[in-house]
Amino acid sequence: MDAFTKWESEIRGYCRLYPTVFKSASNARQVDENGKSYVDFFAGAGVLNFGHNNPRMKEKLIEFIQNDGIAHGLDMHTTAKREFIERFAATILEPRGWDYKMMFMGPTGTNAVESALKLARKVTGRQTVVAYTSGFHGMTLGSLAATANSYFRNAAGVPLNHILRQPYGCEKPCIGCTLGCGMDSVERLRAEYEDSSSGLEPPAAFLVEAIQAEGGVHVASAEWLQAVEKLAKDLGALFIVDDIQAGCGRTGNYFSFDGMGLDPDIITLAKGIGGFGTPLAMNLAKPEHDKHWLPGEHTGTFRGQGLSFVAGVEALRYFDDDELMNDVKRKGEEMQSQLQAIVDSYPDHTFQVRGKGMMQAIDLGDGALVKAIAARCFENGTLLGGCGTGGCTIKLIPPLTIPDADLQEGLNTLREAIATEIGEAKAA
Amino acid sequence: MDAFTKWESEIRGYCRLYPTVFKSASNARQVDENGKSYVDFFAGAGVLNFGHNNPRMKEKLIEFIQNDGIAHGLDMHTTAKREFIERFAATILEPRGWDYKMMFMGPTGTNAVESALKLARKVTGRQTVVAYTSGFHGMTLGSLAATANSYFRNAAGVPLNHILRQPYGCEKPCIGCTLGCGMDSVERLRAEYEDSSSGLEPPAAFLVEAIQAEGGVHVASAEWLQAVEKLAKDLGALFIVDDIQAGCGRTGNYFSFDGMGLDPDIITLAKGIGGFGTPLAMNLAKPEHDKHWLPGEHTGTFRGQGLSFVAGVEALRYFDDDELMNDVKRKGEEMQSQLQAIVDSYPDHTFQVRGKGMMQAIDLGDGALVKAIAARCFENGTLLGGCGTGGCTIKLIPPLTIPDADLQEGLNTLREAIATEIGEAKAA
Amino acid sequence: MDAFTKWESEIRGYCRLYPTVFKSASNARQVDENGKSYVDFFAGAGVLNFGHNNPRMKEKLIEFIQNDGIAHGLDMHTTAKREFIERFAATILEPRGWDYKMMFMGPTGTNAVESALKLARKVTGRQTVVAYTSGFHGMTLGSLAATANSYFRNAAGVPLNHILRQPYGCEKPCIGCTLGCGMDSVERLRAEYEDSSSGLEPPAAFLVEAIQAEGGVHVASAEWLQAVEKLAKDLGALFIVDDIQAGCGRTGNYFSFDGMGLDPDIITLAKGIGGFGTPLAMNLAKPEHDKHWLPGEHTGTFRGQGLSFVAGVEALRYFDDDELMNDVKRKGEEMQSQLQAIVDSYPDHTFQVRGKGMMQAIDLGDGALVKAIAARCFENGTLLGGCGTGGCTIKLIPPLTIPDADLQEGLNTLREAIATEIGEAKAA
Amino acid sequence: MDAFTKWESEIRGYCRLYPTVFKSASNARQVDENGKSYVDFFAGAGVLNFGHNNPRMKEKLIEFIQNDGIAHGLDMHTTAKREFIERFAATILEPRGWDYKMMFMGPTGTNAVESALKLARKVTGRQTVVAYTSGFHGMTLGSLAATANSYFRNAAGVPLNHILRQPYGCEKPCIGCTLGCGMDSVERLRAEYEDSSSGLEPPAAFLVEAIQAEGGVHVASAEWLQAVEKLAKDLGALFIVDDIQAGCGRTGNYFSFDGMGLDPDIITLAKGIGGFGTPLAMNLAKPEHDKHWLPGEHTGTFRGQGLSFVAGVEALRYFDDDELMNDVKRKGEEMQSQLQAIVDSYPDHTFQVRGKGMMQAIDLGDGALVKAIAARCFENGTLLGGCGTGGCTIKLIPPLTIPDADLQEGLNTLREAIATEIGEAKAA
Repeated sequence: MDAFTKWESEIRGYCRLYPTVFKSASNARQVDENGKSYVDFFAGAGVLNFGHNNPRMKEKLIEFIQNDGIAHGLDMHTTAKREFIERFAATILEPRGWDYKMMFMGPTGTNAVESALKLARKVTGRQTVVAYTSGFHGMTLGSLAATANSYFRNAAGVPLNHILRQPYGCEKPCIGCTLGCGMDSVERLRAEYEDSSSGLEPPAAFLVEAIQAEGGVHVASAEWLQAVEKLAKDLGALFIVDDIQAGCGRTGNYFSFDGMGLDPDIITLAKGIGGFGTPLAMNLAKPEHDKHWLPGEHTGTFRGQGLSFVAGVEALRYFDDDELMNDVKRKGEEMQSQLQAIVDSYPDHTFQVRGKGMMQAIDLGDGALVKAIAARCFENGTLLGGCGTGGCTIKLIPPLTIPDADLQEGLNTLREAIATEIGEAKAA
Repeated sequence: MDAFTKWESEIRGYCRLYPTVFKSASNARQVDENGKSYVDFFAGAGVLNFGHNNPRMKEKLIEFIQNDGIAHGLDMHTTAKREFIERFAATILEPRGWDYKMMFMGPTGTNAVESALKLARKVTGRQTVVAYTSGFHGMTLGSLAATANSYFRNAAGVPLNHILRQPYGCEKPCIGCTLGCGMDSVERLRAEYEDSSSGLEPPAAFLVEAIQAEGGVHVASAEWLQAVEKLAKDLGALFIVDDIQAGCGRTGNYFSFDGMGLDPDIITLAKGIGGFGTPLAMNLAKPEHDKHWLPGEHTGTFRGQGLSFVAGVEALRYFDDDELMNDVKRKGEEMQSQLQAIVDSYPDHTFQVRGKGMMQAIDLGDGALVKAIAARCFENGTLLGGCGTGGCTIKLIPPLTIPDADLQEGLNTLREAIATEIGEAKAA
Repeated sequence: MDAFTKWESEIRGYCRLYPTVFKSASNARQVDENGKSYVDFFAGAGVLNFGHNNPRMKEKLIEFIQNDGIAHGLDMHTTAKREFIERFAATILEPRGWDYKMMFMGPTGTNAVESALKLARKVTGRQTVVAYTSGFHGMTLGSLAATANSYFRNAAGVPLNHILRQPYGCEKPCIGCTLGCGMDSVERLRAEYEDSSSGLEPPAAFLVEAIQAEGGVHVASAEWLQAVEKLAKDLGALFIVDDIQAGCGRTGNYFSFDGMGLDPDIITLAKGIGGFGTPLAMNLAKPEHDKHWLPGEHTGTFRGQGLSFVAGVEALRYFDDDELMNDVKRKGEEMQSQLQAIVDSYPDHTFQVRGKGMMQAIDLGDGALVKAIAARCFENGTLLGGCGTGGCTIKLIPPLTIPDADLQEGLNTLREAIATEIGEAKAA
Repeated sequence: MDAFTKWESEIRGYCRLYPTVFKSASNARQVDENGKSYVDFFAGAGVLNFGHNNPRMKEKLIEFIQNDGIAHGLDMHTTAKREFIERFAATILEPRGWDYKMMFMGPTGTNAVESALKLARKVTGRQTVVAYTSGFHGMTLGSLAATANSYFRNAAGVPLNHILRQPYGCEKPCIGCTLGCGMDSVERLRAEYEDSSSGLEPPAAFLVEAIQAEGGVHVASAEWLQAVEKLAKDLGALFIVDDIQAGCGRTGNYFSFDGMGLDPDIITLAKGIGGFGTPLAMNLAKPEHDKHWLPGEHTGTFRGQGLSFVAGVEALRYFDDDELMNDVKRKGEEMQSQLQAIVDSYPDHTFQVRGKGMMQAIDLGDGALVKAIAARCFENGTLLGGCGTGGCTIKLIPPLTIPDADLQEGLNTLREAIATEIGEAKAA
């Protein structure tokens, strides 16, 4: 590991949690250079919904490379891009009766959020964006302003402005939380906007995740999301759903908010849409907003990635029928019930299970404990990590395609690691 | 082309200039779906220094995919990343006696600049960054603040603060320019910083391109860059060179400022380092600055791209000997002399040739004329585009590996297009 | 009135409500140039607590001028200033056991608030200040950021930053208010500050009025103010009470928060302390904060006003015994009970009486109605005005020294004007 | 002096330079409580142009108080205000053929600047204001942003934004200055604004002093001021002259820029216009700009000061004929020639005399020396102070009405103090 220590920046993070060198991967398994195989409950931070080295994608990628496909096309028209656009429209948009425009930008989630905020500000001529406690939206200055976590915010070095922070609308309150989440907060905010002596200017947009992934797997209620959308529309503000980590099938539907009766003005997507771990980001924006863009006003060198389009098309095929999504629901319920059983076996602790579909989490309320459990899981062959405030919550986001046996092995490893660490903590 | 018009955002730009659908590409040739072949003088906005579908890279990529290499690894250790790091250190850093730390972030140039600015602000505890007229550094709010072009800035929707704008130090003044560039401006700025009644606070960093690519192919003099660096160091500010478009061999050396006696605190790289058009971005930061990072303080999902590392290693092999760089110098001189001949053939016009290595440009002082010439070149089978203020300058950045015949064909097409359009302009 | 129309700025306001030219004034009476006398329920926006042309002050001012006293002394030592300082310490500070430092600045309330915020930010090294809905703190950019009313804020022309707005803690809720005021809001805010994923940075200060005057005569509960102070101190932030309009005896004690067990870090004073309508502003700051100032770091040409010191000393004499304060309590109760009787006589309307001491108000929930009533009162010889959101509330702040007969005359005029206008409104 | 040390804020400044307690003053003499008389070369920081306790003003003020005039009238119409407005129009505006509107605000210079900047931003819809090195415009956040001196700026505690700093256009360069002042800088700035890749947005206003008083008595050339005005008008920006310290007769004309052919959009006035040291501030704004104000959009409690209007009318009488202004020119030349003689007597030092009318200064290039000289002058009965960067410049601004004998006594004291201190410095 010398090369990393000698030459790589001190900012490196996950490699400190997983002190080995990985060499290959397949579906829900990562293998290090010593041949040790790990169950992957992390899936590249939610990117690898369809598994590492998905065989259908491998085949198409190799064929594309061999045929000299356009790997890098800026925003020129390419056949690969056309196929992706047509497939996305046919599979995702048209069945929902939607006419969103697809916008490609620099291929990372933060670029998607930055361009969504630009568009909302252009459309409304306003500056402030409402964002939520525990929200995560990226690391560049525009999206970082909307991100809540102070660990990331403190690195900005300049003030992060033009954001109004509000409590998030969890469907069930987190243990000990007194942030005043839920429906009341939307009504309080409405009252403030309606009062010209409240000191608030009307906002450009409300930026919300239907499920906060990095922020600790907080699941918003449909009722609250509807209320936020209604407030946004009443104020002439855009309603933006950031579905970068929770979208692309993770929760048992393509979008994390499917079936809630929402009608977002902009939807941000990244992570999973490139399919293979190949970078891609895309916003869906209503045509009446999208038309405010001038050509090339927001650019990004890598906004037309051929490999991502090719693998992304294969990813979309999983949504041609309900097989994968039904499987996600089934496995998600299995995960949740096993996690709940763990919680129930510690009646003296105030643990909590939260999640939807195959994003499930167990909140232990103790970041050091989570760290110890993750280290033990790594040792015992399962990759997982913490999230949320102080890293108190273990987040499980395996590939959606994980075999049942791997899923069970990972859950067993986790159950045992918790038992050991809590035993050790008691003994200490 | 219906799918694009129907479903893609109005923000699309280059596809309006090149109204066709590209299907394949090889070295300096792009081919559309009708089989028409184009000489590529654009190289994916400077990404494809080693040509489209570079055969050595194709082979290694296919092998990597077939062997289930780690395509997406966040900042975990992978064998692919280690090989890239070791190769970069051995080929680029060690021969120069440098001990920079390599930092990977979201795989786009704007993310590289954002993290460089964060680090400079953390290290110094200051906020303001000096940036330059015609500078281009990206589109997210932190880097956009440093970008000069008002077309991009106007889309921000919020104030772009914490930047002090200064005139750039062109080695030869552009036609009609009265911005007061050059050495004097550095001394004036020094005087302002030394005067406590100047209203200026000391800056966190000076952010400069040694050659401004997007900004109009302005080439700074070594003397001016040295003076900027000295002022930065005297003020306790970081000296950052943004080498995203001009680095990776474009100018005849790996870095655009090689041989100028500079010692940057941070160097930003992207575009060319992933080699194949596969996204990658990397900052080089001096260890004494890098150590200010806390683990994971600045992240980015796609910061560990296996395909980019694999292709990037092949790109680095071009710097094992001087062959490619000598070729770049030779072809660059050829380009420059042919462009100068064009200029000389229009004694009534105040055209100007600028550039270094294989980034060459001809400033026609007229954006509409440039647009007409680019359209005619497209028709006649050569892809090129404008840059700079009002798009008045034609920028030529073919793959460094372009065969002489293709290079000559493209230059011929350009020469004829200029002749036709100027003839037409006269006639009109 | 030609000269005003021809030469004075369109920004003039009160003169539009009182379309006459005033020539003289004495105690609670203002007389126009036609000899018409008006009861003054406005007292120069709360400046003239001791009446127009207070005879004791007149005598001392004339004597001071005749003896060539120092009318304007910057922050040099003068005998007039010393007498004011000694008198203020003896009358106000020492009886309360306080050791605040007195700071003089530009002689307006907004300058007092600006310097209080500067000091809080210097002491804490933080930027954000918590301010409240309906709060009013001044018109210059620093204090305007803390002011809530959008009519004033909209005139800034630049973003008003570094303020976190919170609902004010009214002791009784205003009619129809859903802002979520009261104790809960303090606890919610505490929870946000304690959660590192809340997106909030700890603040430099909490800036609060114990009674909001301009904002609509909202009276905070002691319990809420104590909770705000406790939160401030727990967070290492300064607790600042803006007592510019409500202080100097207005509410029946020298400070509007006397007797509530509060211990502010800074108290801002202006308006009434110069006594005669002569400008003066002063902050009281705890020595441990005050010592962070460097000499002359915040200045203001008119910060040492001899005439204001001389009249201000006479004002302080009213606090040598309880006579005036007892009288204020008695008259305040009389005002409140008569206003309540008015409200009770309109059972079909949701009017509300609010106030403390001799700042009393009747909230009619209708700005046009308030304007019509104020115009009718003017016609009938009483000067009063609206305040609060949309100007829906009539504020009564007569000189504390108003004779009972004048007070009763003004209340009668008001009662009749309300009756007439509501009758007319019904008829219409 | 115990009361001051015990109770007054550590921020006090001038009293540290003049360690005595002043009791009375008349014309150009201040007397302390021990009966020691001082020649006043400071005039209350430029407020007391017509001397301490001007006898005509005393008489009128006493009469006004005795007759129960309106001392404090907000922006209601009063007879005192009407007389001031009419007199100002007749004496100052009409002879110049001007139709400016007079706007009154909080009675301090900083409030005048704040409201001028608000208006410029409202009129143009732009945010940035061009301000100059060494400029001084006040201490509240809006005006402080335009102030150059870092000693004052550092106390803000928040970023001071929306200002573009430019070098000032001194008519003769200060010793050793390399800021690049003068005509060139205006042309460079014009070029930047004309270049859409300069990174500059067009400004709301140019804010400039024709003579910088606090900033070190820098005198701009008429040619430079004209060029700045022309650039402002060409860009659709307002041209604002801050004449707060240099106006009201100080330089030998009512305005410091009289006779230069300028046509400002807004002129800010304060300090001298209240005449007696009584606070008053007023902006003159062109009607086409002024009409953008809504009633009461910018307020200030003390914006209608009866005493200031009364004394201000007497001040204006000095401009009914040329007597005072001729006297100012004569005495100003006398001051300048005697200061030049001092400079000439130290051929080994690079001292410099600067000034216009009765604002004259001697730049010694050494703040510690200036401090020692000021202390010695105080001891020997003359009050004067330093200004400019590092306090290196002695500024002489006696009352315009100073008798010749007092003027000569003060100059003698200064000459001797310089001789002694330079002698001592040599000896040391």
